Amino acid sequence: MSMNSGGAGIRETNEEFVREAQRLVPHLYEAKVYPQQVVEAVRDEQAFQGWRTQHAEDIDSWKERSYGKDDSFILDFGDHHVGYLTLGLKSVGSPQDAPLRLKLIFGEMPCEVAESFDTYDGWLSRAWLQEEIVNVDVLPAVLKLPRRYCFRYLKIVVVDTSRKYTVAFTDIHCTTVTSGDVTRIPPLPEGTAEAWTTMDRIGIKTLQDCMQTVFEDGPKRDRRLWIGDLRLQALANYVTFGNNDLVKRCLYMFGGMTLNGGKVGACVFETPQPLVDDTLLYDYSLFFVATLYDYYNATKDRRALEELWPVAWRQIETALERLDERSVVRDDPSWWCFVDWHPDLNKQAPAQAVLIYAIRRGLALARELGLAEQAAVLERKLEEVTTAAKTLLWDEEKGFFVSGADRQVSWASQIWMVLADVLTAEENAALLDRLFAESPDIRIRTPYMYHHLVEALFLCGKKEQAIEQLRLYWGGMVKAGADTFFEVYQPEDELLSPYGSHLINSYCHAWSCTPTYFIRTYIAQG
Amino acid sequence: MSMNSGGAGIRETNEEFVREAQRLVPHLYEAKVYPQQVVEAVRDEQAFQGWRTQHAEDIDSWKERSYGKDDSFILDFGDHHVGYLTLGLKSVGSPQDAPLRLKLIFGEMPCEVAESFDTYDGWLSRAWLQEEIVNVDVLPAVLKLPRRYCFRYLKIVVVDTSRKYTVAFTDIHCTTVTSGDVTRIPPLPEGTAEAWTTMDRIGIKTLQDCMQTVFEDGPKRDRRLWIGDLRLQALANYVTFGNNDLVKRCLYMFGGMTLNGGKVGACVFETPQPLVDDTLLYDYSLFFVATLYDYYNATKDRRALEELWPVAWRQIETALERLDERSVVRDDPSWWCFVDWHPDLNKQAPAQAVLIYAIRRGLALARELGLAEQAAVLERKLEEVTTAAKTLLWDEEKGFFVSGADRQVSWASQIWMVLADVLTAEENAALLDRLFAESPDIRIRTPYMYHHLVEALFLCGKKEQAIEQLRLYWGGMVKAGADTFFEVYQPEDELLSPYGSHLINSYCHAWSCTPTYFIRTYIAQG
Repeated sequence: MSMNSGGAGIRETNEEFVREAQRLVPHLYEAKVYPQQVVEAVRDEQAFQGWRTQHAEDIDSWKERSYGKDDSFILDFGDHHVGYLTLGLKSVGSPQDAPLRLKLIFGEMPCEVAESFDTYDGWLSRAWLQEEIVNVDVLPAVLKLPRRYCFRYLKIVVVDTSRKYTVAFTDIHCTTVTSGDVTRIPPLPEGTAEAWTTMDRIGIKTLQDCMQTVFEDGPKRDRRLWIGDLRLQALANYVTFGNNDLVKRCLYMFGGMTLNGGKVGACVFETPQPLVDDTLLYDYSLFFVATLYDYYNATKDRRALEELWPVAWRQIETALERLDERSVVRDDPSWWCFVDWHPDLNKQAPAQAVLIYAIRRGLALARELGLAEQAAVLERKLEEVTTAAKTLLWDEEKGFFVSGADRQVSWASQIWMVLADVLTAEENAALLDRLFAESPDIRIRTPYMYHHLVEALFLCGKKEQAIEQLRLYWGGMVKAGADTFFEVYQPEDELLSPYGSHLINSYCHAWSCTPTYFIRTYIAQG
Repeated sequence: MSMNSGGAGIRETNEEFVREAQRLVPHLYEAKVYPQQVVEAVRDEQAFQGWRTQHAEDIDSWKERSYGKDDSFILDFGDHHVGYLTLGLKSVGSPQDAPLRLKLIFGEMPCEVAESFDTYDGWLSRAWLQEEIVNVDVLPAVLKLPRRYCFRYLKIVVVDTSRKYTVAFTDIHCTTVTSGDVTRIPPLPEGTAEAWTTMDRIGIKTLQDCMQTVFEDGPKRDRRLWIGDLRLQALANYVTFGNNDLVKRCLYMFGGMTLNGGKVGACVFETPQPLVDDTLLYDYSLFFVATLYDYYNATKDRRALEELWPVAWRQIETALERLDERSVVRDDPSWWCFVDWHPDLNKQAPAQAVLIYAIRRGLALARELGLAEQAAVLERKLEEVTTAAKTLLWDEEKGFFVSGADRQVSWASQIWMVLADVLTAEENAALLDRLFAESPDIRIRTPYMYHHLVEALFLCGKKEQAIEQLRLYWGGMVKAGADTFFEVYQPEDELLSPYGSHLINSYCHAWSCTPTYFIRTYIAQG
């Protein structure tokens, strides 16, 4: 996720928590990967985003050639990778009498190596587009580019050599990095349908490439720890890599660096030193409670629970401050709660639901810790906000939860209210049926929100519908050729971007990795 | 100089000579220099090449500001420099949520920071244009750019930050490098006219910035040791820096790595290891003799003379092989002899003159070494080629030396014949008078050839005319705002370039440094 507002003031740091987080910096597993073929990008209206790659030359053709001014070629590394590029270079012909100037373009998707970055006009920094200009004074040379890239395709453009020499590539490889240990992933039960093994593999690869020294949201762009992504990555992690210390590290990062009276920020930076971003989001702060709850259930790490509980408690406390006198979350025209990338989505009802969702988990943790007093407070508050939701945010006539002054009916509101268990099981199931039947216009825009839809369907026992959604949505990405699941995917608008350009979208994005969680939790239970 | 042909085959190496050359790698003196002001480049038809810079902001304005997407500014370092750039960078605003992308353009001249390199269409490598694209993932950062640059002006373009932060510059400086020790330069006599002290200073700065681990031809472009440049740099060096070991190093480089049977190449590379280029030029090979002669006269380094004499002798031997049966240098339509950057200049007569010039110096060295037999050979050959020049290349009717089948009359032929002392002193003086009076169309195109004109005038006792040429030509560069003297300067065509674009011209060029030699040798003799 990338955000453009927020606005926070005072940062508070719990040095011990930050030290604990830093103690947990994970080992990065490295592997060398090599280009698999030389391809060309071809316009194809049938292909995802209008581009496909096709085999152009034998694997090693680039090793046998030399290249001069304006020559270029595209290497396909065969899968999505995150890592460091090494180029072995030598001159051919007369001695190198001028520097070599190369342009290197790294693409997760064919569009990135097919279209020009120079036309980019989105509102996120152009610096995220992975393009380097490199000048090399002395050949032969081994270039180890210091920055990390995220790509399947590498386009190499020889901007110039000279009339007296050309350049040959003696080596091109990528040293991949991840904190996910693939040897720890339990195999799926034998006989699992190929559609699920494929989707599981892609989900795991998505998670793996986002697993670095934190759970990054996207290894191409942002490359930071967002709590909304963390929550879903952690769920996928528990059933795959099981790198629970990485979840712990992230919880201590968020818990150790807060804003404006103990609020958990939406995002933290690792460099140059740990720092909480100035972005505060209502739902994201509350997800600290949910993520801690999930972590404890997965690990029974009592000490972490005891240490981090006050942070979780504080999120509920400050979230409750936003309630009006009717116990309804106060709406806000500004950007204060995420829920989904939808410009028209009203956040009030989903925010109320996330609050309920968090209180339920907080209550369970308080009971686990034997904190009777806090548990009693949470029970009472749970009753209040749930009642308010059922009375003030429920439109009996429409049969839907409504949000904001304009009483907006959105998919997100219904889904979150189901997840918050506001209604009975039967009512929840009926609400979801009605949602599909009436299909209100304020739809789902991201894999992140799709995750919650699928989770809601599974939780209501609607396994077939949940599977259908997985097949339609993530299956659509598989058909589109995804090596990893995308940040943004809208089948009817393949160029959709919340940032003004599909070139800057992240095509390996944390919040899209959860098919492996669904498959391993609800589907392929050997 | 940059060349595009040549064509050599077999390289021979004298390992001992190369080791001696490497033993003499000089110490580089470093100094920190800082920007002097923020300027803007302004179109001005009265200014050299149509551009002048004007003061835009106070010295330290850039220190107090921060810059966002598409902001740019031009720093003026106040003088020409060669060295390494350091940038101190920090983010301002929210935490840095996207990489910083900078474009850095280094210019010796205003045109380089005023015009776009993207339109460059010359035939030398675009990679010589000093432009870097830098992406910085983590701020604050101290960037020490690894490449050496050559500039007075630095244009910094902030390609992008993000909407949440801007970039501020906490430090910008250049660490200059040179093997010239300025403290060794003798002061000019008191009372020397300001015009001469200015020209002397600029010539010395030109030499200084070209003095690195070899005498480079130009620190911006090529950055190599060419023997044509070396010969003139050495002359300027003897009367200023006196870094005679650097001349010695260069002589051992050329002498230690030869081509096709002992011919001295036109140019050698230092990296990745010492290597002679595959370019052979008739006059340049012979300049080994002249440069050794000058070096011995300056140093009386008998051991170097003894060791390098066989190389010098071999240049004359192989040059004589090019004589036809009439003892005239055989012409060649290809690019085999430099003399000057002039597309229509015939090289036969100047080549004959350079041969005579070299034989005279070889003869003096042979005598010095007591090599009677070789001296006798040289005396006989000198007589033969001089006679051939005076009879076969002299056009009595025109009163000029002529060159090639079309009997071309050029400035270069006359000047070189004067320097070769083919005629008597009176005839030489008359020839130069006639040259100015009749002014043949094949003119001088470079400071390199102007040097030889001025030298010829001084040697013929035409001091006033020599001074006039210095004032007109190098004085013209001074008026044009030169901090160092240019590779190419033609007052009537300020955009002239042998390479198809004035942007790629070198504006600090070895072969232009000799005013300091003339001033200290012929003018300001206290």
